[in-house]
Amino acid sequence: MYKIGIDLGGTNIAAGIVNEEGKILLQGSTPTLATRTFEEVIADMGKLVNDLIAQFGITAADIESIGIGSPGAVLNGNVIFSNNLHWVNVPLCKELQKYINVPVFADNDANVAALAESTVGACKGYKNSITVTLGTGIGGGIVINNKLYAGSHGIGAEIGHMTIVADGIPCTCGAYGCWERYGSATALIREGKAGMARDSQSLIYTLAQGDENKVTAKVVIDAAKAGDKTACEIFDDYVKYIVIGLINLVNCFDPDVIAIGGGVAAAGDFLLDAVKERYEANIFYKDVDHAKIVFAEMGNDAGIVGAAMLS
Amino acid sequence: MYKIGIDLGGTNIAAGIVNEEGKILLQGSTPTLATRTFEEVIADMGKLVNDLIAQFGITAADIESIGIGSPGAVLNGNVIFSNNLHWVNVPLCKELQKYINVPVFADNDANVAALAESTVGACKGYKNSITVTLGTGIGGGIVINNKLYAGSHGIGAEIGHMTIVADGIPCTCGAYGCWERYGSATALIREGKAGMARDSQSLIYTLAQGDENKVTAKVVIDAAKAGDKTACEIFDDYVKYIVIGLINLVNCFDPDVIAIGGGVAAAGDFLLDAVKERYEANIFYKDVDHAKIVFAEMGNDAGIVGAAMLS
Repeated sequence: MYKIGIDLGGTNIAAGIVNEEGKILLQGSTPTLATRTFEEVIADMGKLVNDLIAQFGITAADIESIGIGSPGAVLNGNVIFSNNLHWVNVPLCKELQKYINVPVFADNDANVAALAESTVGACKGYKNSITVTLGTGIGGGIVINNKLYAGSHGIGAEIGHMTIVADGIPCTCGAYGCWERYGSATALIREGKAGMARDSQSLIYTLAQGDENKVTAKVVIDAAKAGDKTACEIFDDYVKYIVIGLINLVNCFDPDVIAIGGGVAAAGDFLLDAVKERYEANIFYKDVDHAKIVFAEMGNDAGIVGAAMLS
Repeated sequence: MYKIGIDLGGTNIAAGIVNEEGKILLQGSTPTLATRTFEEVIADMGKLVNDLIAQFGITAADIESIGIGSPGAVLNGNVIFSNNLHWVNVPLCKELQKYINVPVFADNDANVAALAESTVGACKGYKNSITVTLGTGIGGGIVINNKLYAGSHGIGAEIGHMTIVADGIPCTCGAYGCWERYGSATALIREGKAGMARDSQSLIYTLAQGDENKVTAKVVIDAAKAGDKTACEIFDDYVKYIVIGLINLVNCFDPDVIAIGGGVAAAGDFLLDAVKERYEANIFYKDVDHAKIVFAEMGNDAGIVGAAMLS
């Protein structure tokens, strides 16, 4: 038996046939064109799935289940609310079953990525884990007792919107000082730009050729790696804020492990070592075993594989 | 069959015989005298339990289980670490079984209080709930799928040590800006004293007769209720910080309900209405169902009843 995982994004729908070990055997994609009605989007999703099945030379009878990772708040197979898709109360699973009659499950995309790490990735073998994605924002998924924890109303694991700086930087969510204003890739880039503006001697300036649009997370981290003072200050501050959020999660959930993913993770051990050092120095119960911090492993496959693992 | 609940505190050990509906039928207590060896403390605990059983006219055969709520980190029946008791790796349950041969369970005291609210108190009937105690510090207990969630290493639900103000007020835990520095009764009293010091016209000054030691949470709240400007400012700020922590919990856990307990809850609807108003105005997913905020109901019984409910 095979499973199908669908990674529903604001731009593209990616889907894959996945085996029981979580390996993607065949995948494809189609544009979301999210301005259309949900019926039209889901019709294309159904076509993509049926095309994959045909191409792989199997039938619906060989598919155990389909899972969908969707942006927004997802509960009982419905997308309650999604900014990216402009959806409110969309019966996602039921609608897809019009095109293929197998069990369909859905959950939030960050949750699904966490499930991928938990079942076959960096958190495999651990009962309680959290996967944190440091990207444009900060996403998170929580696995408790080997099961995805999505909360009571499908709005759990919005960990990027923990306030860590009361009265801090305004967030898109309407609150102030959310973790993602300080710990996301976006935050690192913002601070890198500010650093370049106030210090034209900084290596950030050189690497970005003085062009604000060329300041990426990689530029800031590369400058810090090279020992540039301004970049190091920005990097240390960034690590401080990442660790505040991680310790908040430990103080709330006490998981076995927290996996860090997202574009920023490309900085490798330079980032991970700095995060771990500060984490160990600041954790509450230093003398008691506490969560390990690791990098996520599933990368771009997390969406499809995690969705396929939904049940 | 009966259950026995034990509330192990730094000062007293309280125990009670509890029926299956969570009603305390008989209770007693003995001083902890925490400077003694753990064997001595637990021997007294055993004596207290056996005395209660004898007094109630039953035998150990009538006791289904004993539960203990203990300060500190508790895992698999052992107190891994407790500041208050000066205990490290104490085999609490095993040691108590030397005195009475029934199943013994143990968990952290704040967790146990949450279990009491979940099984027979303010969170009864809800699957996922959090009980927050605003007292000297901020304690918390988390119930997920009707079961206490204590994390992987027995150090979960230290929600009072979420950082909500990066680089804020130093905390006893070694970190800065923890929720309990801003949302506990202690924080309200601290701000009340500061308010009295800077405004001798404040009603806080009058109610406390200008004596710093007479500034209690009740004094500050009574002054705010009466419309005193300084007290109202302090109260509004206090509510702001309580709500930041509550919304952080919602963004992490998305529970059905959060129950607020502790001394501060005596302020009644004046506090609860202010908290709810700010909470509804600031919650992330306003248009999606989200956790209710209520007062805890179990009061002083929470420790014994919740411990008895452990299994």
